[in-house]
Amino acid sequence: MLTPAKASEPSTQGLKTLGIVGAGQLARMLIEAASPLDLQIVVLAQADGEPATLGASRTIVGLASDPKAMAALAEACDVITFDHELVDLEILSRLEAEGTAIRPAPSALRYACNKADMRVKLSEADIACPRFLVLEPGQDFSLAEDFASMVGLALVVKAATGGYDGRGVFMPESLDELRQIIDELHQESITVLLEERVVIRRELAALVVRGIDGSLVTWPTVETVQIDGMCQQVEAPGDLPEAIHEQASRIAAELAHSLGLVGVMAVELFETEDGLLVNELAMRPHNTGHWTIEGAVTSQFENHLRAVLGLSLGSSEMTAAAVAMVNLLGPEDGSEPRDRLHEALAVKGAHLHLYGKAARPGRKLGHVTTLGSERHEVLERAWQASTALGTQRKRAQP
Amino acid sequence: MLTPAKASEPSTQGLKTLGIVGAGQLARMLIEAASPLDLQIVVLAQADGEPATLGASRTIVGLASDPKAMAALAEACDVITFDHELVDLEILSRLEAEGTAIRPAPSALRYACNKADMRVKLSEADIACPRFLVLEPGQDFSLAEDFASMVGLALVVKAATGGYDGRGVFMPESLDELRQIIDELHQESITVLLEERVVIRRELAALVVRGIDGSLVTWPTVETVQIDGMCQQVEAPGDLPEAIHEQASRIAAELAHSLGLVGVMAVELFETEDGLLVNELAMRPHNTGHWTIEGAVTSQFENHLRAVLGLSLGSSEMTAAAVAMVNLLGPEDGSEPRDRLHEALAVKGAHLHLYGKAARPGRKLGHVTTLGSERHEVLERAWQASTALGTQRKRAQP
Repeated sequence: MLTPAKASEPSTQGLKTLGIVGAGQLARMLIEAASPLDLQIVVLAQADGEPATLGASRTIVGLASDPKAMAALAEACDVITFDHELVDLEILSRLEAEGTAIRPAPSALRYACNKADMRVKLSEADIACPRFLVLEPGQDFSLAEDFASMVGLALVVKAATGGYDGRGVFMPESLDELRQIIDELHQESITVLLEERVVIRRELAALVVRGIDGSLVTWPTVETVQIDGMCQQVEAPGDLPEAIHEQASRIAAELAHSLGLVGVMAVELFETEDGLLVNELAMRPHNTGHWTIEGAVTSQFENHLRAVLGLSLGSSEMTAAAVAMVNLLGPEDGSEPRDRLHEALAVKGAHLHLYGKAARPGRKLGHVTTLGSERHEVLERAWQASTALGTQRKRAQP
Repeated sequence: MLTPAKASEPSTQGLKTLGIVGAGQLARMLIEAASPLDLQIVVLAQADGEPATLGASRTIVGLASDPKAMAALAEACDVITFDHELVDLEILSRLEAEGTAIRPAPSALRYACNKADMRVKLSEADIACPRFLVLEPGQDFSLAEDFASMVGLALVVKAATGGYDGRGVFMPESLDELRQIIDELHQESITVLLEERVVIRRELAALVVRGIDGSLVTWPTVETVQIDGMCQQVEAPGDLPEAIHEQASRIAAELAHSLGLVGVMAVELFETEDGLLVNELAMRPHNTGHWTIEGAVTSQFENHLRAVLGLSLGSSEMTAAAVAMVNLLGPEDGSEPRDRLHEALAVKGAHLHLYGKAARPGRKLGHVTTLGSERHEVLERAWQASTALGTQRKRAQP
């Protein structure tokens, strides 16, 4: 008897092939987690030689915005997931209608792809976030002026779509500059999100994974330091009060359930005088969760795989009292951190992760994780290893 | 200025490509450890599709006994290391003379490839092992009779070369049977090693890694259970007295230094009424060290890479008080353990490792590792996961 080549919702029985849209470092670390489970991975890469093309069972070269490339990916796998959010939701919805499992589903993913939609959704769900204004192309600048007169000119302008690692985020210093930024984004048909610039006590990130069956696991909330919109260091659990940990986890869990999320979601939060505000969402493994590779019983990468493939989720318990993660950015002199492995590995308990990307100043090339019993000692070792590899240590924001 | 394409002893600076002879599960786990360090790996596989061919930068198909295949491997890398000992020492010595770094060097590796040479070497170094007799092809059977009359017929016959996982090991029940086994091995020009069958209290394994600079790290000695010559379960540290731990580590460290070892070495030991006796040596990552992937700060795989590439060695400290490893053998009904991932992953903290090998009854397909605070609880969970995947639990030898 012939069985259908593809069911609309593959069961949890049998081995499925996973397709990943994107072949950057997140896809690479997903593949590193997939190998011990003998899971088959197909990646959609923009070019050969991207970080995740090495360990993939198969690489399809193409863009996430190209219907043909996406159809080829869908053909080659049973379940599609993501390394980034620069995707075309229409294409994804069509593939979903044709029977490919998309996890997370386009109906959830849209809130990670579009910051304006995300803000509206959070407001509807009564989850606190900075005051905001959505300005569609064609809408009048006077609305922005009104918003600026309400929250002050200290505001943040964000492209609703297409940004990452601080790109697509602007801090205008005058109304003229604000008008110019909005005009330029609108000319590219990009929706603009204006937000008040809140006074931040600390930045946090909550990490959650939700399975097809609605099972849910949250990792401890972490304290993060962002510089120029890029994650610089993460401490788990940092010195957050237990109540803050719980509140952040609860926000992430509620959102995951209400969105029908399948997979990992990171929620970046601001701690302010008025409480926690949601800053950003990512529905995939996230830089603020890299510490889980060694620092938790199950990493965000393994649990993302387990979730999107319908497997049991693993424990998020920490493996040490204190964990630190420091990003490795390309040295200013353009040198290759890989040439300094020996020195970095001499740092006790330094777990290095290099992504196989060519070194360019300021580019995210990898990260270092350290574990131990005392927060400051652990963070110091992570920085020692990162510095040994050539990363310039920037001071944290005041 | 042109620099030579290959130095006879590559410095520790710059990135080197590692060649692995063999593409089985050990090579696969070496590649899993190599990915986060962005190390390039070329494997010499007997066939496409072997466990380690997926994540390798390049696969060369050929036999370790084929000079052309080995020359192609040497051409493609800077340093050669090993997934198994079924190698040709003459070919390796020639490549070494021509400038390829072979780690461990053939001068050390010969004792892992030839059990008769190993026994002689251990005796010279005054390291205790079972009483033995080496019988070369052409030597008279009366020598074996004399040995049998000294130690009793309860002896073990081993092929000096070519055995693994219990293959090449025989337990004759009569002098006739002994003669027949020896004749058959001698007809294939295989040297025979006769050993007394000692009364074993426990089986242990010591694990050590030594760097190019002579630096040395030992992991905690483990307690192992072997069934039919194949490793079944490992407990770190088990309930060994501290003195036994130290003695086993000391034996391994002394051997590593005296052999000029570079890389990982496992020393399998018998605990007897008369003390520790060395059973076998392996100069590569070993089944009894798989627990180190999650159970130690640095795994045997990562430290082997670091050693043979001249990088700093990492800490062998345990990450939990008790660690258990259970091998996953192919179910008797021929079913695929991969189809039962969901059930096995439901076991708390079960770290699964599947090697990508087709299921055959009794075949080593993977292993499971669990960590915790209490030895019996940890071992029980490892067995639960292994049983969920279909492995038949055999009782340990009395």
